[in-house]
Amino acid sequence: MAVYTDIGEDELSAFLRDYDIGELLSYKGIAEGVENSNFLLHATGGSFILTLYEKRVNPADLPFFIGLMRHLSSRGISCPLPVERRDGSDTGALAGRPAAIVTFLEGMWMRRPTVEHCREVGAALAALHLAGEGFGLTRRNALSVDGWRPLWDKARGRADEVEPGLAGEVERDLVELETSWPKDLPTGIIHADLFPDNVFFLGKRLSGLIDFYFACNDLLAYDVAVCINAWCFEKDHAFNLTKGMALLAGYVSVRPLSAAEAAALPRLAHGAALRFMLTRLYDWLNTPAGSLVVKKDPLEYLRKMRFHRRVASAEEYGLRLQEATA
Amino acid sequence: MAVYTDIGEDELSAFLRDYDIGELLSYKGIAEGVENSNFLLHATGGSFILTLYEKRVNPADLPFFIGLMRHLSSRGISCPLPVERRDGSDTGALAGRPAAIVTFLEGMWMRRPTVEHCREVGAALAALHLAGEGFGLTRRNALSVDGWRPLWDKARGRADEVEPGLAGEVERDLVELETSWPKDLPTGIIHADLFPDNVFFLGKRLSGLIDFYFACNDLLAYDVAVCINAWCFEKDHAFNLTKGMALLAGYVSVRPLSAAEAAALPRLAHGAALRFMLTRLYDWLNTPAGSLVVKKDPLEYLRKMRFHRRVASAEEYGLRLQEATA
Repeated sequence: MAVYTDIGEDELSAFLRDYDIGELLSYKGIAEGVENSNFLLHATGGSFILTLYEKRVNPADLPFFIGLMRHLSSRGISCPLPVERRDGSDTGALAGRPAAIVTFLEGMWMRRPTVEHCREVGAALAALHLAGEGFGLTRRNALSVDGWRPLWDKARGRADEVEPGLAGEVERDLVELETSWPKDLPTGIIHADLFPDNVFFLGKRLSGLIDFYFACNDLLAYDVAVCINAWCFEKDHAFNLTKGMALLAGYVSVRPLSAAEAAALPRLAHGAALRFMLTRLYDWLNTPAGSLVVKKDPLEYLRKMRFHRRVASAEEYGLRLQEATA
Repeated sequence: MAVYTDIGEDELSAFLRDYDIGELLSYKGIAEGVENSNFLLHATGGSFILTLYEKRVNPADLPFFIGLMRHLSSRGISCPLPVERRDGSDTGALAGRPAAIVTFLEGMWMRRPTVEHCREVGAALAALHLAGEGFGLTRRNALSVDGWRPLWDKARGRADEVEPGLAGEVERDLVELETSWPKDLPTGIIHADLFPDNVFFLGKRLSGLIDFYFACNDLLAYDVAVCINAWCFEKDHAFNLTKGMALLAGYVSVRPLSAAEAAALPRLAHGAALRFMLTRLYDWLNTPAGSLVVKKDPLEYLRKMRFHRRVASAEEYGLRLQEATA
């Protein structure tokens, strides 16, 4: 949770003169999003989210993120639609920061997703992958396999403070993943961070996807691997095979996985767990006391790394191979 | 700002079955209110605020707070209206805490109030004082003059850490105020915390008052004194006489001040400044590092104490005596 930057009514009203959303009725800083400052606006033209991009977002990436939401929305994906300014641009400046307004999506994220939710998110992820085709901009994944070692170099010296033996264990996994990372799998636009707090539901039905600020071009099956990590483990760290089956069945009902993608899934899931362990470890070691950001436990992902290390085939995640491959 | 307690969609949906506000569409933790956890709900029946009462609010006081909002609302004051549950009660339990739902008020609070805003808030405060008449419950002001010394006793030992000499200066003021505090002034329901973040505007017009969780029975003129402190000083700590004139003119246009109330105003304003200095000092010394609560500077109110100490009559705040008294 975070609202880093407060804004005044006068500066907000001035900012909104460049938009056609009607009169401002209220705005509230909301406790969602750890990267940016977000405000829920009520205007006579409807409800909107105003985002101020804080330092973790590179302003040069904004045309990609904003353009992607517009592209996906035009392809039928329920996601925030950027509101165009009167001059046709998508972003402005507010409180010294780049800022954008997007439509507000109704729906709630699931603190305790069910099997049915996992099926829905699998299908939505595949639909996103298909809808991403034809988007004209590209962005490399700074947090894919070649981005892990620079991050690790900044954290390894203190890793054993968090768990004795962590430095050696991570180093072995990292070397193995660097040398064996799949290369010839289908690529495209991936969300790269489709955790439960980025997926809204109304009842059992998925109502929208949000937070495209890690989206990039990468292996599509890596996005599936991220979701397996994010959706299919229980609070007690146990892998829930029924949820894995549902998520993968949802996915392949929309976009089949190739045999090569299926074969690579354990490695991709192992790498995805390492990626989230590394960023959490870095934040754990570098978030100042007194910060408004709630630190997430890196050891949750260490446990997942250990799980994936022992998985021999995608069937252990619940993939039914005869259904999966096109 | 604070959301102390997160809630899940399933427990919230269960809680809402006791209300008649339609289907839940979304809920967001909002970064307002330092005492409680607040969520902005969108439902098919409209927008609402859900409040979970955290430990600083005594559950025994809730009938007073909730009943007062209902009373004031029925008397034409624009404030949150508690939503009745199907069984006719006003509060329930959610996430182990007392919880209530009130209507959402559109409007924005002014980070930089103008003279016109001060006039509006003065008039609204007087209207609140008149509307409070006839409310059947009472609540003593735990933070009036007899509550200051117990608070001071918990802070004085470390006061000089915050500013050298603070302990002696506060002790002298406290003794003086304890011995000279006015007793025979008109009493009634006061808001007791009508700072800019508790007053909403749409343009120049006041659209509503919120946060009645310090409301109580006390001297009505003390509430005016709180507002002089909260609204009429600039960021550079200077008293703005034009704002004082506007606030007081707004007040007396709705409810005249008696000669005795006018004469007591410097002492009441001095006491109000001491009251906010004391709670800020206590919080400053006792808020743990890493807390989500932003600490407010007690020294801002020390400067105000010094200002009020030198004020000889209410005219120095901008009160025009010939207009003021009935």
